[in-house]
Amino acid sequence: MTASKIIKVHEPLSAAGFLDQLQKKPPLFICTIASSDTALIPGVSAAGAGPELIPYTAAADVEALYHGRAFCLDKIPENPVGPPSPVIITMAALRRLQAPCLIVDAGNRITPQVPMLTAGRRPGHSMTEDIAVEEVNKLFFQGILIGRQLAVTGHSLILGESVPGGTTTAMALMECLGLKACGRISGSMPGNNQTIKQDLVEEAMRAKNITPGELSGNPLRAVSLFGDPMQPVQAGMAISAAARTSVLLAGGTQMIAVAALTGALYKLALKNKLPAGFGSEAADELRRCKIENLAIATTSWVTEDKAADLRGLMAQLQPPLPLYSSRLDFSRSRHENLRLYEQGYVKEGVGAGAMATAAMLYDNLEPEAFLGEIERVYEEIYLSGS
Amino acid sequence: MTASKIIKVHEPLSAAGFLDQLQKKPPLFICTIASSDTALIPGVSAAGAGPELIPYTAAADVEALYHGRAFCLDKIPENPVGPPSPVIITMAALRRLQAPCLIVDAGNRITPQVPMLTAGRRPGHSMTEDIAVEEVNKLFFQGILIGRQLAVTGHSLILGESVPGGTTTAMALMECLGLKACGRISGSMPGNNQTIKQDLVEEAMRAKNITPGELSGNPLRAVSLFGDPMQPVQAGMAISAAARTSVLLAGGTQMIAVAALTGALYKLALKNKLPAGFGSEAADELRRCKIENLAIATTSWVTEDKAADLRGLMAQLQPPLPLYSSRLDFSRSRHENLRLYEQGYVKEGVGAGAMATAAMLYDNLEPEAFLGEIERVYEEIYLSGS
Repeated sequence: MTASKIIKVHEPLSAAGFLDQLQKKPPLFICTIASSDTALIPGVSAAGAGPELIPYTAAADVEALYHGRAFCLDKIPENPVGPPSPVIITMAALRRLQAPCLIVDAGNRITPQVPMLTAGRRPGHSMTEDIAVEEVNKLFFQGILIGRQLAVTGHSLILGESVPGGTTTAMALMECLGLKACGRISGSMPGNNQTIKQDLVEEAMRAKNITPGELSGNPLRAVSLFGDPMQPVQAGMAISAAARTSVLLAGGTQMIAVAALTGALYKLALKNKLPAGFGSEAADELRRCKIENLAIATTSWVTEDKAADLRGLMAQLQPPLPLYSSRLDFSRSRHENLRLYEQGYVKEGVGAGAMATAAMLYDNLEPEAFLGEIERVYEEIYLSGS
Repeated sequence: MTASKIIKVHEPLSAAGFLDQLQKKPPLFICTIASSDTALIPGVSAAGAGPELIPYTAAADVEALYHGRAFCLDKIPENPVGPPSPVIITMAALRRLQAPCLIVDAGNRITPQVPMLTAGRRPGHSMTEDIAVEEVNKLFFQGILIGRQLAVTGHSLILGESVPGGTTTAMALMECLGLKACGRISGSMPGNNQTIKQDLVEEAMRAKNITPGELSGNPLRAVSLFGDPMQPVQAGMAISAAARTSVLLAGGTQMIAVAALTGALYKLALKNKLPAGFGSEAADELRRCKIENLAIATTSWVTEDKAADLRGLMAQLQPPLPLYSSRLDFSRSRHENLRLYEQGYVKEGVGAGAMATAAMLYDNLEPEAFLGEIERVYEEIYLSGS
């Protein structure tokens, strides 16, 4: 039954418990937002109808989650070619599931009109600057504290993100941790702008004298040099929450990078090799983490993307984790802007793939029926008089 | 069985469902913190070992909830005479219940080292200044948004606070809404400093030309002139949450004031008489609210306080709500500073009374056994070597 709508892309462990749990009870959805100036480098991000709108994307996404529309933008974020933010998928899923949704601020340039759990208040800089993310240890620890509380609500957690430029910072993080990510990542444009992103990452690493894999012993330093503020917060939440409940990292490329960061920290903690400056509370949580409680879920647009290689990334992940994807198909949508998803635009974000997985499993909903609900959300936003 | 440890102080409705629910499942505890410069007026607040420590009290309380100790103070907040903050009661209850705990920032002078749901960032001014609370409507709406999400987690909610000076701002709010509060409120000192607080409230109301009951048609204006930032956030959370789950307002005097605010807004919404500037989303939530889902819970030190009259306040509350109190007795404690609670010091705060109610009901725990657990928390903080 689940075979048709959920693809088990990579399932190294016996992890069927995940999907079972989603069938039984709606999850708690947590969306972490952050800005990274890496997104402002031409060619990196297709979030926002134009480059000047990129910093508004994450704020507008979470406003839509809470209010049904954005306040800081006219409608909701859009790809320059027209297709809307994947937040419409998440909104349709939340409506179906009647699930709670909390927003975590890891450091965002525009403050949305929603209450947020504040993990950090400093937007990320570009990976071409000296420091990309300030106070990484603190962000990680705030994530630990948030995950610890939310994991005992009795729900499994779905941890999504909205971070323009996030697949490029993900590529850099993975390369620093020793994964061969170049040429394998997905992104929000057809073809994923692999060359632009790869050139940028290689150039930034060269400028800072870092070779691939060099920072596997100091993973948070990789974030501080090349990453974005979402990564350490998300890793912290995943670690403390996975000691207590099931956690689905909601995304493709970006969540494989978070999983690589999580795994690297976990292995160092088990070997008592965490870098100096690591607080004992954070170290204890790392040792308590149950890696078997973690999985990744995204959309089929990402996992089946011919211009990316998610299976190739997953094969390098240590410890190995399962990767699932929800089979979404917009080819028969009545809206041109949704059909563009099938040409490789947008693909994922705001936890869309994992939330679609949860919605379709919980209510035994087929992708075609779910598309109808996504279209209704789209129409409420774009075709309403207000 | 519950008769001995829980006092049903006031139960106008058939509200037994509340206590039943707490017997079945741990609640979600939410602690809202705020600063008010009213607390800095001599004689108003006994939070903090000395007046210069008052602004640290709320931050230190929530740090203790998350970390077992405060970071911004040496230990935890204390009354000048010695007894510790009631946070030790809440900590013991959270440990028993293994319940999730989230912190809401309504506007606090000192930023604690814990992640917080941000409803507002501006500390309150003194009621003797032109405006006591800025952007009250916004604070109320942020509370609405938070309550809406947290109410669908499957838990009942316990809404506590840490706001030094909060019983004085509560007295003022109640007087403006038409409750005769002077001489009836409780507070953190024996005798409750009724005269100082009453003189201050009367003087502030005279200076702003407001007569008792005059603001019952514009309750948020009463908050903006005389209240504190916790009040509108808490009322907002209570209103949207009570449409979806059971909500226990956790406190004595302060929560009767919040309930009066909630009730006044609710009645105006039903009559379509909300003041101009009230957003339609907030108005809709008010009309959706189920008042029968609301109750108040505090400690027996407050409800049985001879120098206060909680029953007299409850009798004036419209719509009427139930008031419960947990029968706590520290007279046989092995620590002098805890025995001082029996002389009228501290009495309540950080949701202690309601959390004690929840802990004792859920685990069928007697007050003496629970005292032992509170003493262990106290000893860990005060007698540990670290």
